[in-house]
Amino acid sequence: MNSSIIRYILGQVLKIEALLMLLPCLVALIYREYSGFSFLITLGICGLLGIAMTYKKPESYVFYLKEGCIATSLSWISLSIFGCLPFIFSGEIPSFTDALFETISGFTTTGASILSDVESLSFCILFWRSFTHWIGGMGVLVFLLAIIPLTGGSHINLMRAESPGPSVGKFVPKVRYTARILYIIYIGITILEFLLLILGKMPVFDAITTSFGTVGTGGFGIKNDSLASYSPYIQWVVTIFMILSGVNFNAYYLLLFRCWKNAFNMEEVKYYLIIIAVATMIIFTSICNSISGIADAFRHAAFQVASIITTTGFATMDFNLWSSSTKTILVLLMFIGACAGSTGGGIKVSRFVVAVKTIMKELTSYIHPKSILKIKIDGKPVDREIIRSINVYFITFTILFSASVFLVALEGKDLTTNFTAVAATINNIGPGLELVGPTQNFSGFSPFSKYVLMFDMLAGRLELFPLLILFHPVIWKDWIAQRKMRKKDR
Amino acid sequence: MNSSIIRYILGQVLKIEALLMLLPCLVALIYREYSGFSFLITLGICGLLGIAMTYKKPESYVFYLKEGCIATSLSWISLSIFGCLPFIFSGEIPSFTDALFETISGFTTTGASILSDVESLSFCILFWRSFTHWIGGMGVLVFLLAIIPLTGGSHINLMRAESPGPSVGKFVPKVRYTARILYIIYIGITILEFLLLILGKMPVFDAITTSFGTVGTGGFGIKNDSLASYSPYIQWVVTIFMILSGVNFNAYYLLLFRCWKNAFNMEEVKYYLIIIAVATMIIFTSICNSISGIADAFRHAAFQVASIITTTGFATMDFNLWSSSTKTILVLLMFIGACAGSTGGGIKVSRFVVAVKTIMKELTSYIHPKSILKIKIDGKPVDREIIRSINVYFITFTILFSASVFLVALEGKDLTTNFTAVAATINNIGPGLELVGPTQNFSGFSPFSKYVLMFDMLAGRLELFPLLILFHPVIWKDWIAQRKMRKKDR
Repeated sequence: MNSSIIRYILGQVLKIEALLMLLPCLVALIYREYSGFSFLITLGICGLLGIAMTYKKPESYVFYLKEGCIATSLSWISLSIFGCLPFIFSGEIPSFTDALFETISGFTTTGASILSDVESLSFCILFWRSFTHWIGGMGVLVFLLAIIPLTGGSHINLMRAESPGPSVGKFVPKVRYTARILYIIYIGITILEFLLLILGKMPVFDAITTSFGTVGTGGFGIKNDSLASYSPYIQWVVTIFMILSGVNFNAYYLLLFRCWKNAFNMEEVKYYLIIIAVATMIIFTSICNSISGIADAFRHAAFQVASIITTTGFATMDFNLWSSSTKTILVLLMFIGACAGSTGGGIKVSRFVVAVKTIMKELTSYIHPKSILKIKIDGKPVDREIIRSINVYFITFTILFSASVFLVALEGKDLTTNFTAVAATINNIGPGLELVGPTQNFSGFSPFSKYVLMFDMLAGRLELFPLLILFHPVIWKDWIAQRKMRKKDR
Repeated sequence: MNSSIIRYILGQVLKIEALLMLLPCLVALIYREYSGFSFLITLGICGLLGIAMTYKKPESYVFYLKEGCIATSLSWISLSIFGCLPFIFSGEIPSFTDALFETISGFTTTGASILSDVESLSFCILFWRSFTHWIGGMGVLVFLLAIIPLTGGSHINLMRAESPGPSVGKFVPKVRYTARILYIIYIGITILEFLLLILGKMPVFDAITTSFGTVGTGGFGIKNDSLASYSPYIQWVVTIFMILSGVNFNAYYLLLFRCWKNAFNMEEVKYYLIIIAVATMIIFTSICNSISGIADAFRHAAFQVASIITTTGFATMDFNLWSSSTKTILVLLMFIGACAGSTGGGIKVSRFVVAVKTIMKELTSYIHPKSILKIKIDGKPVDREIIRSINVYFITFTILFSASVFLVALEGKDLTTNFTAVAATINNIGPGLELVGPTQNFSGFSPFSKYVLMFDMLAGRLELFPLLILFHPVIWKDWIAQRKMRKKDR
């Protein structure tokens, strides 16, 4: 194992985090808040540690999928550990477990909070909370790839480990340029939403943080009632940008280069929009009677559907009070998730499309056992290896999900709470139902359950395997063997 | 499609059903019940229809997997439709939907009832309810194979479509002898349990019906409190026989032919017993405080674990009142299910063993991408095709499960009821939680939901695909084309 490159990447990530913390410092300066010092201190720690870790160049720049996965997981874990320090230093979230939960929830774009009163937080802390969504949405390693020239090595492995979806499409041969294009699209959408929100007379600070939360499909709000108190115009803007952020970014790339036909023919995006439309219509008819005003009912239905399927987690209503058929639809949407290659979480529409086609193929093979059928997406046959990996993903997801529900259940909360708490974290949504419904929060869980849910958030964001291999005995054996070797060399 | 052989098999199945109805007639005669006439009438209908359908020999005896699946599904559907007639004729379950639900629940060894007061039923009807479990447990087509010489053709396809588990093991080259051995073991276990129950001073009628329900892993009781009012000895006997009935029957075959070593080294059986032991211990410690007497607590824990994992569904206590962590374990056990090649339902332990090994293999492939690993069960590498089919099974199960929960949720019951109602039917268990808990029943559902759950029971028992291909458009096109051809010929 090339552990020097992992150390080097971790160092770079910490340096980036130090840089990113300049922004909340700026916010603290504008609002003259003492909490700004907690960011300054953390910035110093991250910066110094980052410089120390990157001072010695790695022995070799070559790294494979294994190193890519380990570097990614460890980066996300360190990002979260250092990212939670300002919460603790400022005293606004004094408990380490809670601060870490909030930060992991932020970076993984989950938006599950342990806070009951977010309005009492200082502006710089609120900014940092929402900013972590934006950083985590596109991924910090993608950012690293975009700005730092890592010569040699197969960097695609870093991106593969961090990007959502069954396969990573390189737009252009160089990973670096692909990463840059992704960030340009990402920044573009964010700015566009910000401007439209400003047009709707949203205060500038609210517009910035809401844009971060929407485009990163995060879901941390800066109001206790999430987005309920904003105007219908603002709620519609957020609805549309949640849906846009859940679209496969390949589509925007194709639009950018004027491949209109290919962009509008993406099968996954079509199904994604159809699911949104159908779910919205069903929920709309279901809540129509209980909400006065057809336009209002439709807005609430569309907002909640968009919020859940894109795994954002904003709310304009307490959907925990809705009928159980409506809640069932929302729970199903939690698992479907957004498109691959978007900032959203969940299992992803493309995996479901492949799954349904696999079932149809299996049934056909019962009828014509000798026929050779290929599963096609966008008219092109899907690689056998990708289908296999999607199958394995489903199984791994199911088993990890069940194990988590079991562990969380040990503290004796009701089944719906446990089930939806795990569903809301592993799919990076935020709110669940019952005790973790949109008007509630995750503070009621024991520290043990909180760590289980933190693990689920990271596992969900990193698409399971990069995080899980940290626990593979081979990795530990490798690492111990290497340490022994080094001791001998000395 | 060779539809004449399907017609022929359906006819034979109806003839067998007519024969089997002689037994409840005998029971009616002993207890001098008028309800016996309803069996006589049904017997007549089945017999005449069966004779008419088998009068003309099939044009060809060759049938493939497709015909095997269709024949199996249609056999189970006709068995259920004709099997429910006595309930209606006798007036004991007057509604067709309810009677059909009860019968499908019987044949599929689910044990989910729509009756709130089973003690008011006549003896012959109670006997038939439990007898359907016994018939469905090993499978009626396996019975057909054992007694009727179907010359030519590949009959293994019939058995493949009806037997639980990812692959069918033929003990001996001839399917007919395999089917016979299976039935001999099955009858042996049933008689043994009956004798042990009689030894515990259980009334003969109760011992017969309880043995049918246990060995078939069905779960219909003849008392309103299921098995709660019987002695601890009887409850222990039932516990042990539930566990024995959930063991892969290959193990008994090996024991029968004194292959001790192979029998005791079956990986699936080992894991199955480990899961039972662990779950029992956890539940035991959890309920220990609330139940007076350690022995009682242990018995209740072991009974409920055995009842749920083998998908029998008997109860000695209302586990719906237990803590939510305990209930979560029971819900997880519902999905695991018994061993392949047993009479139990659920996803099956062997599928989970392969699933976990697949995940481990996937993780290892991230670390050593070029290594070629084989998944092994019992020391032998598992065929690639079987692994693929297990993966597809998981995905199909998940999607069918979610779709069913969605459909059942439309009538607005609470989430736990909907979720566990579908879990308890698709896994062929019987009771779920909340409104379908062990002291409740399924009568509260709308007819629409009942049909969804009936479909799930059949899909679960026939392991999804044989039932699902009935809905494949190709099958319908084939059938319509054949009808047209025949009309032309005339």
